[in-house]
Amino acid sequence: MTFIHDGKEGFAATALAGFASAHPRHVRHVPNGVVRSTAVPSGKVSLLVGGGSGHFPAFAGYVGPGLADAAVAGDVFASPSTQAIAGVARAANHGGGILMGFGNYAGDVLNFSQAAERLKAEGIEARILPVTDDVASAPPDQASLRRGVAGDLVVFKIAGAAAEEGLDLDGVERVARHANERTVSFGVAFSGCTFPGAPAPLFTVPHGRMGVGLGIHGEPGISEEPIVPARELARMLVEKLAAEKPAGSDGRVAVILNGLGASKYEELYVLWSSVERELRERGFTLVDPEVGEFVTSLDMAGCSLTLCFLDDELEAYWRAAVDTPVLRKGPMQAQASAAAHHSVASTEAAISDASEESRAGGACLAGLLDDLAAMLAEAEEELGRLDAVAGDGDHGHGMRRGAEAAAKAAQDAARRGAGAATVLARAADAWADRAGGTSGALWGLALRAWSEALSDTAAITKQAVANGAAAALAAVVRAGGAKPGDKTLVDAMTPFVSTLRDAVDRGASLEDAWDEATGAAQAAAGATAQMEPKLGRARPLAARSVGHPDPGAVSLGLAAAAVSAFMRKP
Amino acid sequence: MTFIHDGKEGFAATALAGFASAHPRHVRHVPNGVVRSTAVPSGKVSLLVGGGSGHFPAFAGYVGPGLADAAVAGDVFASPSTQAIAGVARAANHGGGILMGFGNYAGDVLNFSQAAERLKAEGIEARILPVTDDVASAPPDQASLRRGVAGDLVVFKIAGAAAEEGLDLDGVERVARHANERTVSFGVAFSGCTFPGAPAPLFTVPHGRMGVGLGIHGEPGISEEPIVPARELARMLVEKLAAEKPAGSDGRVAVILNGLGASKYEELYVLWSSVERELRERGFTLVDPEVGEFVTSLDMAGCSLTLCFLDDELEAYWRAAVDTPVLRKGPMQAQASAAAHHSVASTEAAISDASEESRAGGACLAGLLDDLAAMLAEAEEELGRLDAVAGDGDHGHGMRRGAEAAAKAAQDAARRGAGAATVLARAADAWADRAGGTSGALWGLALRAWSEALSDTAAITKQAVANGAAAALAAVVRAGGAKPGDKTLVDAMTPFVSTLRDAVDRGASLEDAWDEATGAAQAAAGATAQMEPKLGRARPLAARSVGHPDPGAVSLGLAAAAVSAFMRKP
Repeated sequence: MTFIHDGKEGFAATALAGFASAHPRHVRHVPNGVVRSTAVPSGKVSLLVGGGSGHFPAFAGYVGPGLADAAVAGDVFASPSTQAIAGVARAANHGGGILMGFGNYAGDVLNFSQAAERLKAEGIEARILPVTDDVASAPPDQASLRRGVAGDLVVFKIAGAAAEEGLDLDGVERVARHANERTVSFGVAFSGCTFPGAPAPLFTVPHGRMGVGLGIHGEPGISEEPIVPARELARMLVEKLAAEKPAGSDGRVAVILNGLGASKYEELYVLWSSVERELRERGFTLVDPEVGEFVTSLDMAGCSLTLCFLDDELEAYWRAAVDTPVLRKGPMQAQASAAAHHSVASTEAAISDASEESRAGGACLAGLLDDLAAMLAEAEEELGRLDAVAGDGDHGHGMRRGAEAAAKAAQDAARRGAGAATVLARAADAWADRAGGTSGALWGLALRAWSEALSDTAAITKQAVANGAAAALAAVVRAGGAKPGDKTLVDAMTPFVSTLRDAVDRGASLEDAWDEATGAAQAAAGATAQMEPKLGRARPLAARSVGHPDPGAVSLGLAAAAVSAFMRKP
Repeated sequence: MTFIHDGKEGFAATALAGFASAHPRHVRHVPNGVVRSTAVPSGKVSLLVGGGSGHFPAFAGYVGPGLADAAVAGDVFASPSTQAIAGVARAANHGGGILMGFGNYAGDVLNFSQAAERLKAEGIEARILPVTDDVASAPPDQASLRRGVAGDLVVFKIAGAAAEEGLDLDGVERVARHANERTVSFGVAFSGCTFPGAPAPLFTVPHGRMGVGLGIHGEPGISEEPIVPARELARMLVEKLAAEKPAGSDGRVAVILNGLGASKYEELYVLWSSVERELRERGFTLVDPEVGEFVTSLDMAGCSLTLCFLDDELEAYWRAAVDTPVLRKGPMQAQASAAAHHSVASTEAAISDASEESRAGGACLAGLLDDLAAMLAEAEEELGRLDAVAGDGDHGHGMRRGAEAAAKAAQDAARRGAGAATVLARAADAWADRAGGTSGALWGLALRAWSEALSDTAAITKQAVANGAAAALAAVVRAGGAKPGDKTLVDAMTPFVSTLRDAVDRGASLEDAWDEATGAAQAAAGATAQMEPKLGRARPLAARSVGHPDPGAVSLGLAAAAVSAFMRKP
């Protein structure tokens, strides 16, 4: 159980702020993350690591000389947004390019990739490094599909040491990928975990059983078995990983025995006694083994074993000096530096000049987003119910938070004189940043692509709107990889975009074209929106659905309807 | 829950071995503990810390330059024995005397005090330092009765820094006592804890409630209240400790926010955000605050806040460089040293020469202890049942383990040619070492005092036996502080000793005198021993008891009966 909190909202952000405040020698707090508080040589490659919260010391505890330059944190078990990642990356940029390390999860891949694209567009060279060490999540011939667990620490440690030594971005990336290819983990869980303030666990493990290979967010493992004594558990973990020993390995291994959060250090040390013996009996040479909590999973009980099959280069980087809140070896010593305190303002770009027509368009978009946010707020519970059938039930929550943040950012930008393109781009970033999850990231991408079809100098045209819709769909398909029929947002977005395009092309007004497109989207989503004309709001009705409607597609239909209503307002 | 173990037996010892193996840069494993693996200047005062296991990183995680020289570990939640403490102290002796730091619990006070006496008798100057920081356990005017919790770390850190600086034993003790007087802690617990392999928790906290001031072994707290949000919890903890601010404090405080084991680091950081604000709002200046797990309690969920009201001297020692597995600051860096590897054999004394008569007496004593152990093994369950009425039900277990170990050590010493005094002294140490708990320590003391009335050169006389019995009683009363009628071992031992003395003095044979004394002991214990003449064994029968017999007194009666039977054997 998680007992100490002020509710789920803000838990991750408050924990991060508390961590930063307790570790001034190592880190400085920036929006959504921490960066080193120590002096860093100009031109050094920066290692940015991150992912969802709830995994402490991953990832903020890894920041310091010899390891990461910065960590970005999402909400509990949720990827940080593209904007959050890019913002922390800007604050951690020392001119040598940025390598972004994270565990291989869909939301993280999406957001870190997008952030890298955005940074490249700004002239900051950025690469991504998804860690894929969990052998329980895919067979060896599909190793690139594996999830990332406690192997994160080994891969990041080695990459951080290479960056510290002065390798360039190509060099650091090569070493990091090599370390990732040689790193494997396997674990078991004895209990589920509970979100701060949640009335029930996210998932459970039956009494007396253990989930073998269970993921750190409860992802399916290999099997469920009766709990075995520590000696047998050690053998099981070592055997599984020993089978992954690559050709040419001479048996040198970096080792991490990791606790998931609720398993005691004494338990880990009892297990370690057997793990060490099992490894030595198989001829392995243990190099700087670490036993402790390195990648946790809220209050899950369980553990994992990680091996990195070392060669000379990897061993040197694994042994290299490091000083972070969670890992320290050698003479390196973090010392907070006043010079390292860049202005936090550097994480945000400025607002460019705009024409009067475009500013009017921007103000109009801001008003439209207010109405859209109000409609989604009203539909929050029903969207949550739809989502709970196949998902985790937080779709309505995410859509409301995203739309509210987008509306607020749009109003703010409009007040500061931004044109239509900038207003929508700011709204897009804020949406992705606050909504969280994959759907938040996709909405952010879609709106940002749409904004690029607009401009800060010309008025909004119906052609530009239709082009923007097409660009938004293309962005969602490119990033999310979904095809029509996959039961996603794309199912409603595809007919919406084609209908809008056709209607605009045959000369319909924007209002008529939008209405027609909205109808097409709702029909495809398998749900109608029941309009309340007075308020211009709607609630989704799954009346025409065959099977269950996808909540993402339903939200799109609702959002489109909100825009229709806005356009028809006197 | 504790999921990773190979059963309760050996859990603490295996965890200690695993810890030592994972931290070769800091520690070296010795029987029952760890000592620094780093070079230590000759003549330096040694700081030995310790207590029961289950509190990791207390106490082994505190060993390293700038903090402790050694840690001794008992079984889970059980004091280490006098012998264990003395043994680790010998291995940690650098010639400057030894300060022994531990939390203020009866078993620890008893065993560390006895160990200090024993070391002094060997010419090693030793002092004890019970830490008394838990404000929930006694009011300010009885501060010396308070229990020790996470304040341990602050007091030990300051004492360790003073020792590192080169202060002599008087100086280190003065600084440590001063730190202890200025250190206060207060905590809450949200759940109980479970022994490794135990079918049920040791105690529980009702769902949705928190034990305010609950001790780290489940000792009673101040109240039980509904769980409050982190913000309110922070205020409650800070208010309670702020009220303890001593006159003359300028508001500088060392701070520890400690997690009990199952509370996540993220929870602690959320709480820290509020604790820090509350402290600053009250005008405190925070010096090197630490947030994390420092004194845990198996898998208990909960936390405690510790403040040490600093002056210039305490602040300097608190800020001083340190490098241990759990705490590191400044440029200090532990580096294992081959020179520091004393022989582990140095923890044991040699066997001195003995006369033939005394060796025969020693062999006889070893045989006697075998029978005594067999009888206690048979009575284990029933003694456990007697103990479960008012205690934790482990009296029978402890007596069996103690007696078995004593018999084994006696046989071993007798085989190696030891005289009667040495055989009994070795048996005494082994008993205390393996039995655990307060009664184990008292039996160890009693037999050791008895052994001092015997000799390695003369035959055993009935006068020597009677003198030994009186010395044993005096040792038990001195160490345990119990009076007749307190429902302890003393209730049976007092009439035993006086009856034995009187019978011997009036000329009875040892056998007759012993029989008479045994009868007096059993009558006083409120229990008779039902003899099975063939085996010479007995089972306790509480037939004549008014109220419930004390298990300690019953065991004494049983042991006396076993000796009677041994003496009457053909």
